[in-house]
Amino acid sequence: MEKLYVIKIGGNIIDNEEALSKFLNDYASLQAKKILIHGGGKVATDISAGLGIEAKMVDGRRITDAETLKIVTMVYGGLINKRVVAALQARNCNAIGLTGADANIIKSSKRPVKNGIDYGFVGDVENVEAQTLATLINAGLYPIIAPLSHDGQGNMLNVNADTMASVTSVALSKIFEVHLIYCFELKGVLENFEDKNSVIAEITPSKYLDLKEKGIISKGMIPKLDNSFDAIQAGVTTVRICHADDLKKIINEQAVQGTVLKK
Amino acid sequence: MEKLYVIKIGGNIIDNEEALSKFLNDYASLQAKKILIHGGGKVATDISAGLGIEAKMVDGRRITDAETLKIVTMVYGGLINKRVVAALQARNCNAIGLTGADANIIKSSKRPVKNGIDYGFVGDVENVEAQTLATLINAGLYPIIAPLSHDGQGNMLNVNADTMASVTSVALSKIFEVHLIYCFELKGVLENFEDKNSVIAEITPSKYLDLKEKGIISKGMIPKLDNSFDAIQAGVTTVRICHADDLKKIINEQAVQGTVLKK
Repeated sequence: MEKLYVIKIGGNIIDNEEALSKFLNDYASLQAKKILIHGGGKVATDISAGLGIEAKMVDGRRITDAETLKIVTMVYGGLINKRVVAALQARNCNAIGLTGADANIIKSSKRPVKNGIDYGFVGDVENVEAQTLATLINAGLYPIIAPLSHDGQGNMLNVNADTMASVTSVALSKIFEVHLIYCFELKGVLENFEDKNSVIAEITPSKYLDLKEKGIISKGMIPKLDNSFDAIQAGVTTVRICHADDLKKIINEQAVQGTVLKK
Repeated sequence: MEKLYVIKIGGNIIDNEEALSKFLNDYASLQAKKILIHGGGKVATDISAGLGIEAKMVDGRRITDAETLKIVTMVYGGLINKRVVAALQARNCNAIGLTGADANIIKSSKRPVKNGIDYGFVGDVENVEAQTLATLINAGLYPIIAPLSHDGQGNMLNVNADTMASVTSVALSKIFEVHLIYCFELKGVLENFEDKNSVIAEITPSKYLDLKEKGIISKGMIPKLDNSFDAIQAGVTTVRICHADDLKKIINEQAVQGTVLKK
């Protein structure tokens, strides 16, 4: 099977013009089939504030009421997605911006109210049309996916970008040899959060359990790692968590960088 | 050559939920290859006002400064485009939302300052990648295009939706038998603007000159008609200007509706 890189770029990189520009240089220079999934960043919060809409968070997740859904659809699907696409086009990378609604690539269902928490217009992914994505990729296009989906009944839904990267990777692993790379502002999963160089080079499922028990894995990292191990179990070849600056080195296999997750 | 409908829907229909919903029902039911190009509507102005950014207009065209460009990228490329895509997906139409930057389908250059007027980030279309659009269409997808383009240097540009419909139709006329239909809130080109039923059934280039000389064609209609006659000269088979409600009748060729433009 042909290699396909699914690369997720976090909101903190999106918010930093210089870091984003460097990342996009490296992304554009990667000569392989690839998909980019981007997070949201702070812009949605800033625009909401400008319009007098207050962002509501529960457990680090945005509560998406109807007004917030409009904002994230505009900001993630319009402003950020098109900024990335135009920047990649300028770098001779034939990017095509998509949400899950476009070509019906990622369909979700509205998350049910649980423990009294109504997340609002937040989606849990139900289906990824891997064949449609493969058609676009095989036509020489590079999909750039915003963390938005739809419910098939006319509503857009906000989706966690990490989860989106993971389920998309799993679906594509039936067609490609998929390498999922989470790029963010840290060098990898850290042994000690105060020491930004204390990268754990490799994590297996048993080591993961151990690290969680010892409280070494930080709370914010757990959903990302849960997603990653699910993806590996379901057919993704490798998952790596690394600094956005290290993408090029990783792809050129020049050096061990970041944290690799293994079966 | 196979028939392709390029349908442009005006901002006044986009702004009217009921009219839009009816139009999308008819659009989804149209069993043919098709592209939809949508205008902007008032939402961008409302959002700008909410953020304290004042819309500047010259000759009915929005002056697009950097802040306004952000707003129209969000609103046209995000909010409106994805609302239409999700609504069509709910109607079993496999819509894919695009701007000119996506897959590089429509590239523009920033309009030069002329007669002391700097339109800002407004693009004049330079190139349409008809083959890429044909690849998407032949894959069973229905492109929904927002009135936005890019300059190939990383900048998005605001483009007039009527012009976009016309130049896209011309480019696609090398591959398909193209029928361009402008759908808006009037029944066609009117003989007397006060009488909404005074539709001129057919306009030829010589009749057009005559109508302009007599001052019968309203100012707002002239760019649309100029674009249309350019499109016909350049290979588009028919251009029709009609009410959004009449799309279905026209396509089923049940009755003469709206204004037809002929060589």
